[in-house]
Amino acid sequence: MAKVLTPRSKNYSQWYQDLVIKADLAENSAVRGCMVIKPYGYAIWEKMQAELDRMFKETGHENAYFPLFIPKSFFSKEAAHVEGFAKECAVVTHYRLKNDEVNGGVIVDPDAKLEEELIVRPTSETIIWSTYKNWIQSYRDLPILINQWANVVRWEMRTRLFLRTAEFLWQEGHTAHATKQEAIEETEQMINIYAEFAENFMAMPVIIGLKSENERFAGALATYSIEALMQDGKALQSGTSHFLGQNFAKAFDVKFATKEGNEEYVWATSWGVSTRLMGALIMAHSDDNGLVLPPKLAPYQVVIVPIYRNDEQLNAISEKVDEIISKLKAKGISVKYDKNDNRKPGWKFAQYELKGVPVRIAIGPRDLENGTVEIARRDTLEKNITEIEGVDEYIENLLEEIQTNIYTKAFNFRKENTTKVDTYDDFKVAVKKGGFILAHWDGTSETEDRIKSDTKATIRCLPLDYEEEDGVCIYSGKPSKRRVLFALAY
Amino acid sequence: MAKVLTPRSKNYSQWYQDLVIKADLAENSAVRGCMVIKPYGYAIWEKMQAELDRMFKETGHENAYFPLFIPKSFFSKEAAHVEGFAKECAVVTHYRLKNDEVNGGVIVDPDAKLEEELIVRPTSETIIWSTYKNWIQSYRDLPILINQWANVVRWEMRTRLFLRTAEFLWQEGHTAHATKQEAIEETEQMINIYAEFAENFMAMPVIIGLKSENERFAGALATYSIEALMQDGKALQSGTSHFLGQNFAKAFDVKFATKEGNEEYVWATSWGVSTRLMGALIMAHSDDNGLVLPPKLAPYQVVIVPIYRNDEQLNAISEKVDEIISKLKAKGISVKYDKNDNRKPGWKFAQYELKGVPVRIAIGPRDLENGTVEIARRDTLEKNITEIEGVDEYIENLLEEIQTNIYTKAFNFRKENTTKVDTYDDFKVAVKKGGFILAHWDGTSETEDRIKSDTKATIRCLPLDYEEEDGVCIYSGKPSKRRVLFALAY
Repeated sequence: MAKVLTPRSKNYSQWYQDLVIKADLAENSAVRGCMVIKPYGYAIWEKMQAELDRMFKETGHENAYFPLFIPKSFFSKEAAHVEGFAKECAVVTHYRLKNDEVNGGVIVDPDAKLEEELIVRPTSETIIWSTYKNWIQSYRDLPILINQWANVVRWEMRTRLFLRTAEFLWQEGHTAHATKQEAIEETEQMINIYAEFAENFMAMPVIIGLKSENERFAGALATYSIEALMQDGKALQSGTSHFLGQNFAKAFDVKFATKEGNEEYVWATSWGVSTRLMGALIMAHSDDNGLVLPPKLAPYQVVIVPIYRNDEQLNAISEKVDEIISKLKAKGISVKYDKNDNRKPGWKFAQYELKGVPVRIAIGPRDLENGTVEIARRDTLEKNITEIEGVDEYIENLLEEIQTNIYTKAFNFRKENTTKVDTYDDFKVAVKKGGFILAHWDGTSETEDRIKSDTKATIRCLPLDYEEEDGVCIYSGKPSKRRVLFALAY
Repeated sequence: MAKVLTPRSKNYSQWYQDLVIKADLAENSAVRGCMVIKPYGYAIWEKMQAELDRMFKETGHENAYFPLFIPKSFFSKEAAHVEGFAKECAVVTHYRLKNDEVNGGVIVDPDAKLEEELIVRPTSETIIWSTYKNWIQSYRDLPILINQWANVVRWEMRTRLFLRTAEFLWQEGHTAHATKQEAIEETEQMINIYAEFAENFMAMPVIIGLKSENERFAGALATYSIEALMQDGKALQSGTSHFLGQNFAKAFDVKFATKEGNEEYVWATSWGVSTRLMGALIMAHSDDNGLVLPPKLAPYQVVIVPIYRNDEQLNAISEKVDEIISKLKAKGISVKYDKNDNRKPGWKFAQYELKGVPVRIAIGPRDLENGTVEIARRDTLEKNITEIEGVDEYIENLLEEIQTNIYTKAFNFRKENTTKVDTYDDFKVAVKKGGFILAHWDGTSETEDRIKSDTKATIRCLPLDYEEEDGVCIYSGKPSKRRVLFALAY
């Protein structure tokens, strides 16, 4: 079968677009900037959701649901928030259509204009803190540890499937605490959970760090992020956790009586990951043949393709396959048996490579005779003949090996593509080459802005894991005590 | 503790409102008609989702996600659909806010007006069928069996928590088939799944039937519903499944090549249940003390309350409780141990009654000595002293008994409140009394309309399970071959 994807080396961005479409993950919809997430893509997102939801609940969080709409005036209540957020968004102004008596069809009923416009949530801090005001009176009501799975809308001008869409799916945690310390600990706990999820489930190594002031969430005192390196050498911010201080409590007047009988403003955090993780997952591992999925997030981990010429052969094979399937299922391994008669084995092989199924088993009449199957692993494309006896254990180990291998591959790629530079000239060369760059910075927004307008590279984060060292800012030459992480970014 | 709920006998509607608020299920938000679903309420909804999702997947359906927004023109494409649906809805007209230089705050940017207004989905047939057009060419592409979990908006004027809100959560299945027969079978399969869910999980008996033409979904050729009887004698439509014929395929020009090489329009179904089920669940079983939850949908099935005077007693109790908890968990029973020191046992007892926890265990120092615990069941409020030895099996059986008992109670209530009437005078008396009414009807919309405007009662459905019998329409006296189900309804 001819390759269906543009090779990465030719046009990385087109390769991504091809892959998302051809692997049936998502597509553009009739509504500008909004995507349709197709069943195969959604199944991966559901796996991500299930793991994250479990991790949130294990750390004491509960789910809840808040309104899709936010009154326009709410956005003005927190000054920094309105600057950063409320501008490009979907605005509901009317609540009724009526028949168009002249031209047919329907038109907006001018008599049904809202007194105050409603904004389709771009994020929910404001509506949630206006609600928390009624829930919190005393320290006994704290902490509140709530998460919401929801859709949000940001009217992006240039959109790309999963990476930047007008509507996307996400989770947003919103917690309320009695002390600053507790809120900071929560913020850090959640970024660590995101990192654990990225590394253990997505097999994607990430750098945990603090955002510079320029890149902070609108309304936050500190923003932590996890940053991953994509195969084209660009960084992708994959999750953020914000320490909001008392900003939203002050904006919505949320005070509580302390144990000691004083009245104080409540401390807040918020944190989120979105369907953007799908983009990260795709770009971190996949190749010119298609998607490469970590076994822990694959909708099905194993596909079995029978090779046969007639019904008799198929029946004999299917009998053996049923045995294999029940053994695999007993080990918690998900399997698809594709005996669709409309397609040839070669077509199926290419199709499941495209879809990133971690392990493919092929089985024909000769295998039956020999008591063997052919096993192909998606990550390395290696094939192997294996005894049917014990194939369940073999595959169980293989899935673990694949999970580890694709993590290691991504980790080594990042290592090879992380450069320490000490001069601005070297920096500019490194930016052109791509990858993560560790360099000294004088800590000012001005320098950050200049570097960005010169090179398009931004400070991805101030990594939490760093060594103190004396140096000078690559741009200004001013003294610096540590390196920060620069990169071109999605 | 004083009763916190208005008694049902005094004001049923106020009782419902009190219960939803006091049991921490949901509350009204700052946005008119939109609710906040609180963690305890959302946990019940999550249990419902998990079971339904499992049932959908077991019958071959996959989840996907389609855009929140629908171009206005899409609604005009299916004539009956636009009449029934597109009127009371949230309309997005602009995509940007800007700073208000005069008064501060933000205003809608008049320069950011959309060329075509977008409607926040009230239901997704139109956007989904416009998408299916690109997915379906041949019979090989069929069937498509997709479900979506989503939020939808209908601009209701009079709202009630869970029962009727401007925004609500639901699932909507949208399937595409090659033949009429297959689509009808799908429609029936899904209404049967809803009935199974209502009866086995919600412990709520339902009548499955066909809607009369008046009450059909806008754009459907046939609508099936499940109808449940609430304690105030009103019916609540709890789920619907629609056979849409080829209406949406024709509206969006979705044709396929048949096996025989002809070109035909695709056959469609859609089906949904929503957070309205929460309202049904609450009203079907609860009492003046609070919520009564079926064990299969309770966020936690057992609560354990320690009775103690000092830390030493608490420690001894907790040690024993830990044993009990691990035994219960081993049986898949969910438990909460409430050793919160801020509240007295009596307060806790009332609180968990309010929240409908199926089984409460109380344990004090005397119990420790005797090797016993006190067990109270929520449905009957009966208390019992039981040996700790074997308490896990006791509770396992008790939970099953409670599940069965509340179903039986609801079933008997419905039986006692279902009346056959043969004259219009008797009908009017029966409507005043409340409950389900089985009566003959001449099959015309005119008669249905007259009866509704006279009595407010509507035809809930033409039950699938009925006996043919000769009779005359209670209103027109015209001949009829079967009884249909009337009631006042939510």
